Amino acid sequence: MNFASDNVTGAAPEIIEALSAAAAAGPEMPYGADSYTARAEALMSEVFEKEVSVFFVATGTAANSLSLSQLVPPYGGAYCHEDAHIQVHEAGAPEHYGGKLIPVGGEHAKLTPAVLQPAIAKAVPPVHHVKPSAVSITQASESGTVYTPEEIKALASCCREHGMRLHMDGARFANAVASMGVSPAETTWKAGVDALSFGATKNGTLAAEAVVFFDPADGEEFAYRRKRGGHLFSKMRFLTAQWEAYLSGGLWLALADHANAMAARLGSALSEIPAVEILHPVEANMVFAEWPASTTDELVKQGFVFYAQESEGRSRVRLVMAFNTRPEDVEKLIEAVRGHGAAQAAQ
Amino acid sequence: MNFASDNVTGAAPEIIEALSAAAAAGPEMPYGADSYTARAEALMSEVFEKEVSVFFVATGTAANSLSLSQLVPPYGGAYCHEDAHIQVHEAGAPEHYGGKLIPVGGEHAKLTPAVLQPAIAKAVPPVHHVKPSAVSITQASESGTVYTPEEIKALASCCREHGMRLHMDGARFANAVASMGVSPAETTWKAGVDALSFGATKNGTLAAEAVVFFDPADGEEFAYRRKRGGHLFSKMRFLTAQWEAYLSGGLWLALADHANAMAARLGSALSEIPAVEILHPVEANMVFAEWPASTTDELVKQGFVFYAQESEGRSRVRLVMAFNTRPEDVEKLIEAVRGHGAAQAAQ
Amino acid sequence: MNFASDNVTGAAPEIIEALSAAAAAGPEMPYGADSYTARAEALMSEVFEKEVSVFFVATGTAANSLSLSQLVPPYGGAYCHEDAHIQVHEAGAPEHYGGKLIPVGGEHAKLTPAVLQPAIAKAVPPVHHVKPSAVSITQASESGTVYTPEEIKALASCCREHGMRLHMDGARFANAVASMGVSPAETTWKAGVDALSFGATKNGTLAAEAVVFFDPADGEEFAYRRKRGGHLFSKMRFLTAQWEAYLSGGLWLALADHANAMAARLGSALSEIPAVEILHPVEANMVFAEWPASTTDELVKQGFVFYAQESEGRSRVRLVMAFNTRPEDVEKLIEAVRGHGAAQAAQ
Amino acid sequence: MNFASDNVTGAAPEIIEALSAAAAAGPEMPYGADSYTARAEALMSEVFEKEVSVFFVATGTAANSLSLSQLVPPYGGAYCHEDAHIQVHEAGAPEHYGGKLIPVGGEHAKLTPAVLQPAIAKAVPPVHHVKPSAVSITQASESGTVYTPEEIKALASCCREHGMRLHMDGARFANAVASMGVSPAETTWKAGVDALSFGATKNGTLAAEAVVFFDPADGEEFAYRRKRGGHLFSKMRFLTAQWEAYLSGGLWLALADHANAMAARLGSALSEIPAVEILHPVEANMVFAEWPASTTDELVKQGFVFYAQESEGRSRVRLVMAFNTRPEDVEKLIEAVRGHGAAQAAQ
Repeated sequence: MNFASDNVTGAAPEIIEALSAAAAAGPEMPYGADSYTARAEALMSEVFEKEVSVFFVATGTAANSLSLSQLVPPYGGAYCHEDAHIQVHEAGAPEHYGGKLIPVGGEHAKLTPAVLQPAIAKAVPPVHHVKPSAVSITQASESGTVYTPEEIKALASCCREHGMRLHMDGARFANAVASMGVSPAETTWKAGVDALSFGATKNGTLAAEAVVFFDPADGEEFAYRRKRGGHLFSKMRFLTAQWEAYLSGGLWLALADHANAMAARLGSALSEIPAVEILHPVEANMVFAEWPASTTDELVKQGFVFYAQESEGRSRVRLVMAFNTRPEDVEKLIEAVRGHGAAQAAQ
Repeated sequence: MNFASDNVTGAAPEIIEALSAAAAAGPEMPYGADSYTARAEALMSEVFEKEVSVFFVATGTAANSLSLSQLVPPYGGAYCHEDAHIQVHEAGAPEHYGGKLIPVGGEHAKLTPAVLQPAIAKAVPPVHHVKPSAVSITQASESGTVYTPEEIKALASCCREHGMRLHMDGARFANAVASMGVSPAETTWKAGVDALSFGATKNGTLAAEAVVFFDPADGEEFAYRRKRGGHLFSKMRFLTAQWEAYLSGGLWLALADHANAMAARLGSALSEIPAVEILHPVEANMVFAEWPASTTDELVKQGFVFYAQESEGRSRVRLVMAFNTRPEDVEKLIEAVRGHGAAQAAQ
Repeated sequence: MNFASDNVTGAAPEIIEALSAAAAAGPEMPYGADSYTARAEALMSEVFEKEVSVFFVATGTAANSLSLSQLVPPYGGAYCHEDAHIQVHEAGAPEHYGGKLIPVGGEHAKLTPAVLQPAIAKAVPPVHHVKPSAVSITQASESGTVYTPEEIKALASCCREHGMRLHMDGARFANAVASMGVSPAETTWKAGVDALSFGATKNGTLAAEAVVFFDPADGEEFAYRRKRGGHLFSKMRFLTAQWEAYLSGGLWLALADHANAMAARLGSALSEIPAVEILHPVEANMVFAEWPASTTDELVKQGFVFYAQESEGRSRVRLVMAFNTRPEDVEKLIEAVRGHGAAQAAQ
Repeated sequence: MNFASDNVTGAAPEIIEALSAAAAAGPEMPYGADSYTARAEALMSEVFEKEVSVFFVATGTAANSLSLSQLVPPYGGAYCHEDAHIQVHEAGAPEHYGGKLIPVGGEHAKLTPAVLQPAIAKAVPPVHHVKPSAVSITQASESGTVYTPEEIKALASCCREHGMRLHMDGARFANAVASMGVSPAETTWKAGVDALSFGATKNGTLAAEAVVFFDPADGEEFAYRRKRGGHLFSKMRFLTAQWEAYLSGGLWLALADHANAMAARLGSALSEIPAVEILHPVEANMVFAEWPASTTDELVKQGFVFYAQESEGRSRVRLVMAFNTRPEDVEKLIEAVRGHGAAQAAQ
């Protein structure tokens, strides 16, 4: 029973079926000049209700770094949350592809104009500071929270005011969209997002990510950037066959719905256990909680796998639900936490 | 009948079966801490008869650029053939990851110490020139030729003399090994190769490449480089399941043997047609030929697909055989060329 | 009366005399193979009581970025204060030369092990985070404070514990050394500093900075880095003639002593004015104060030049003393502030 | 008697006088917001008969690398001669600042459309090759030859045809302009040059180079690039005071005229000595000759300093004249070569 991350999973049957079919099919021209890619591109524009410029890659770090390098000149800066994946967990990839990240704070891993404005104001003296060029937000965030379209609009407006662009790290984009029940368009370009790193890997594919530009001008020479990073696949069909299956018939939202439902159930049940504190609103597929360190010890003993940070007898844990998380495993987890709490209280 | 490249193909059944199994299997820890990766690593050491340090990636450009950045400091230079893939077809990726490429000449896309020595000698004045740091060779070469272990030893010796390292771009490594009938060890570390970009994508996998260091010291911090480039896969099992299947039971050599045999047959048959000139020795899975431009026109009309460069009534073509090239298609191609030649002669 | 910065100044007569002599002298081999450079190098080793490896450049940003790129691999991180010049005022230069900066807090712009340890601890998960590689401190700091040898030793010990190196941005190194009255050796290598950006520009030269490595191994290939950044001067004598004069006969400390004395006088006098709050200990050549915004307005009207930040009727100002600041100008400034305060009180 | 390079020299008296005055002058705002810089900028526009966007730096490598990074995107390529300084003697600086250099051939170190067109044609397959973005020429060239305005126009036209920009490395721009007797405008923007690295260091200043953009749009954000490279001087007056003196009253052309005259005299005299072969037309301030290796030995013995390459009993030498080369030294050199030749013939 592994709740460490949504990337400990295999892949959804629909995805691997599509891949098998693509593997057995006849020759296709390489580097994206194939029929799978054409169909995946068309689907992407359909999903966003707009002609988008889309580039398929295989890792989220590639999608983030490359898309940021399009929005941010080498001498520019992108503001992000201090807990953002791009800042803490990508080993300097965004800087490698160009530009500098400037971390700022914010509750529940979310940025607000109130936090950004004074940070941007520090860039006043000409050219000493990097040029403020973009803001990057994570949807759903690293704390499992979600930006509403209104919150995104406020950030976009702050960006426009300073001639900056808005980037969205959508490693868990499906979970955010499914959670809010809004259209993909409403939470992206209609709210002012310029570029989206659209992740599918965590939600049932093998390795499938996409850079989506809502202004086609951004995509004009972007293919060079992807190639220069070593991220252009020769047998592109194997990325885009996954995307075709993922976007067809709403599979992507169905998979995310399941993961979200599991998180909602877990969060709700845990919140009723006295010894447990829920640390962030449960708005996507992750539950962050704090409980006694002994609870973590007990769960680990019972075979549960998850990340935990211990400090002074307390344990802060992250529990991630996936497209294939089994309801019975969630119930077992709830039972185990509740049981340990009861045992403790009885002592 | 597509002879444009070995990357127009799908994937071998053994590979997609392994992938399907990996997709359906239970949770595995991400980022390479999984059982598939452990087994693929062990197989790699077995294949090379030596404990190697191996890092799995998904594109050849990633493998080349990353491995070169390990051998060449940011202020260093790597000598390569002027037709080398890293120089001409990787959009500046090697320079993006660090260091400068210095192109030199050489027959049939192969480097020799005789060509390298004067080029290296130009670096005499301290620090103005980049520091000569590595030589990169392609095995099999961009012209479909193969370096013998003796030729590699001579290059390695030239490298050692100048304190340089030897890199091998093995996008078609299987074809070279199968062609020579030597062991993988003999054509790499036993001959003085420090790092190998071991490609499997062109030979029956979906997207599977590996950086192999023969000196484990080179691998110590390399994982950071891979991550910083955006090339660390979260669901690593999907790369390494391919590798496990590829290296098991000699599949990789069997697939390459087939492609090589197709090229040998084609090269041999074409060489007997008067209007055709074979441009490079056929030593792996590619045939380079020159024939009348009208022959190309005729073949294209008949539905054959391949790259051709026209100049003054002549056509220089590249014909690439793959793991799944059908013998009957090769015969059809031979027939078509021969038929056109006969028709011409009859005029 | 310009107190905006120590770089609004011209140059000390001794420096320009040395430069004039060098300009009129006969041919010297370029790129540092000249007699001025040899003498400046010898003087540097004398000053530090140790054979050092030294590289002369012309800007502080060059010295900082280049020296950090020697201590920090491209995939590594350097921890610095969030107000550090390298983080806020170098337009991303350190990242351009390699590695990532990780800003942390600390009173009076100084780092402490207590602040660093938890920041470094965040790098636990292998390779996602950049590799903790160096700590960079500014001596004297951006707030005009000074690290004692003991404080530096504590930071160096924290570095060693994590396999990290210690970098010192010494844009105002002379002011720090003069202020403490310790030897240059005691506040650098004897305290555990690996590399020093030794600045002379702010203290009486035209443009003269140096990268000093205390472990000669760091200097072995550094000349390539300097050249690759475009920072190798062909007529090197014009940098090193400045250095020769600067280090000869203790000129550098005499110049700094004067600037420090001016700051001490100003800080002490201002601290006795009720409406003025001194924001940081005055330990080098800068005074940071807060006073009514109307005081700033009055001073500007009287022709004083300095940087000020207004907020809610208060003004936070930075007043920088230089090698050639005239005592009478300092007294005029004190008088002006005192006068305005008295006038205000009388209302 | 040092003919090794024009950078073995000191500086012209006018330059050092200007510098001394600037050093003794009162406070000036830093980073270019000073009166010297304003005047130097105005002079530059006057010299080019056009409002130009100019950025002062201190080394030619900085000027070249930075200006190229403005014209060439990170994924782009700049074509240059295989002997170009940027390709051979800048330690990879251009690639460090972005983009890739693609070396091609050409007589007397000069590029022609005939050589460029087939090289550019290789970039056909989309995105594998870097994007052809610029051509860089050296004026005067590394072989001491000069591009006429017509030759430059032909190259510019080739650039426009492919959507590329034209860069000029003018390390010896003064020598080229003085040699042709055309206006600076005619050999730059009127002929289609987009950016010029205007060098003054080799021609009588201490360290003074400038990036000149003829389209102001290129200069809009360039100040960030200069800062990010560490090339923004805080006491900018010390760069621009040199430029002011250099451009005032035609000093720059007078200095170059002298050097050119010395080279003309030397080239003409040497060409009449039977044992000497002049290798390139003498069109600026350098003479390239081939003579017996024994001649070189004899000259070295007599105290002449210059670069020579020996091969099979012959010596290829470069003799560089400077703004302050003494006519009597040139005559001594001529005499020594002639004398050795006569002595040889007499044997």
